Amino acid sequence: MDRNKLKQEILSRQSYLITGLDTDLTKIPRHLLSEADPAFSFNKAIIDATAEYSVGYKINTAFYEVNGARGWETMAKTIDYIPKTHFTIADAKRGDIGNTADHYAKAFFETLAFDSITVAPYMGRDSVQPFLQYPGKWAIVLGLTSNSGAADFELQQLNEGGNPALYEHVLKTVSLWGTTENLMFVIGATQAEAFVRIRKIIPDHFLLVPGVGAQGGSLKDISEKAMTGDCGILVNVSRAVIYASSGKDFATAAETVAKEYQTEMKGYVQRLTLNV
Amino acid sequence: MDRNKLKQEILSRQSYLITGLDTDLTKIPRHLLSEADPAFSFNKAIIDATAEYSVGYKINTAFYEVNGARGWETMAKTIDYIPKTHFTIADAKRGDIGNTADHYAKAFFETLAFDSITVAPYMGRDSVQPFLQYPGKWAIVLGLTSNSGAADFELQQLNEGGNPALYEHVLKTVSLWGTTENLMFVIGATQAEAFVRIRKIIPDHFLLVPGVGAQGGSLKDISEKAMTGDCGILVNVSRAVIYASSGKDFATAAETVAKEYQTEMKGYVQRLTLNV
Repeated sequence: MDRNKLKQEILSRQSYLITGLDTDLTKIPRHLLSEADPAFSFNKAIIDATAEYSVGYKINTAFYEVNGARGWETMAKTIDYIPKTHFTIADAKRGDIGNTADHYAKAFFETLAFDSITVAPYMGRDSVQPFLQYPGKWAIVLGLTSNSGAADFELQQLNEGGNPALYEHVLKTVSLWGTTENLMFVIGATQAEAFVRIRKIIPDHFLLVPGVGAQGGSLKDISEKAMTGDCGILVNVSRAVIYASSGKDFATAAETVAKEYQTEMKGYVQRLTLNV
Repeated sequence: MDRNKLKQEILSRQSYLITGLDTDLTKIPRHLLSEADPAFSFNKAIIDATAEYSVGYKINTAFYEVNGARGWETMAKTIDYIPKTHFTIADAKRGDIGNTADHYAKAFFETLAFDSITVAPYMGRDSVQPFLQYPGKWAIVLGLTSNSGAADFELQQLNEGGNPALYEHVLKTVSLWGTTENLMFVIGATQAEAFVRIRKIIPDHFLLVPGVGAQGGSLKDISEKAMTGDCGILVNVSRAVIYASSGKDFATAAETVAKEYQTEMKGYVQRLTLNV
């Protein structure tokens, strides 16, 4: 899905909500466990209930890999099930050198037809570039994350002009390897105070923002500080939506929460002068 | 496999060679493509041919994920096939926050019974610690890699006393999160001149050293500069061993190359005063 199509989908649903399918067999409603593929049954019901309010879905590969080959089958079935109108993210945080990265790109963009994949920047240019060779596909590179460990390396100051934090150097450097049409960045919602500085470095790139909801980030703060003229942010909510209820009403409960997020987002989307 | 057992296996085979199963369906001998699971048939033949000369095997997950769920089945069968006397590495370079990292640890240490997994440090402490909770299992954290992209971030100088490179700060910081019994580091073989400095920061940790062979690192250099009293290094060779021949003699050719590496390693192992 290219940027223009993504903007149109955001406008059409008045939403930039990415529902995160962190589907955990120990957390889904117990009555689903007798199904042939409980995780897929759960995902189908969640997708049906939230598609109207979400602009896309994020699949966290860890929750599927824990079930081995069967988990990869669930992931493949889920990606096929998601409507083609919705943006899909493999939250895989892969990062390896050239030839290996080529294989990861093929795994997530061809074998599984994801629109995008999250990528770790540590190993540098040749670990990111293979993901930038597919028209309409995106690398979403880790910038500043929402966890406490962000302080260990991402926030370390570098010994160069202005002493940027490592993550600022990452944003600046990586942004030169691609374009605003094939590169996004992960910026955690708990880092709202950093968004102004971040927008000076990468004014136009889409940001994937996790950490709203369970991790305490404010949708209002992020939207006011990080939105661009054509939205420019995708806000991920996982647990708060998909585990809104652990009972038989789980899908309706997820729909209600997704709709609440979408209702708030609609207000921010309407304030924009959308350049579509 | 704990450190003591690993040392015993190194002594017993006089080898610290890790054969890398970067099994690529476009590169394996064509006559295997008619087998039910060509990649598994290839891996079995390579393992049978090289087990005497290797202390372990490294499975690069990208080469399996490109084949989807079927690739994960191949990976599961391969890990079951590797003799329990051999150290196993999931070269997966995972790295994500707490709850997700818990799932990755379970995926690679329980669902698939690997001894170790490579981990990316960018997201900090809570992305590494979940891998350190399994007795006898190891996190192998990226330090300084062998690719050209290492210059982009790993070699950036930090603004603190002595202006260490980022990777030096990573080695120092991460080494405090675990012990020499559950933590190793990846240091590329093309970085031989850095090994003296690295051994000052982490004198006792095992290092996983890729980049010998196809990438041009020298086994002699690395062994002289990085070995500890109990060996302390695992040297990975992938393509140079497994693709030594593309014909029907591929396994014999792999055996020959693995034996050449082992013969050279034997000389270095014998020089050590082994503390077993």
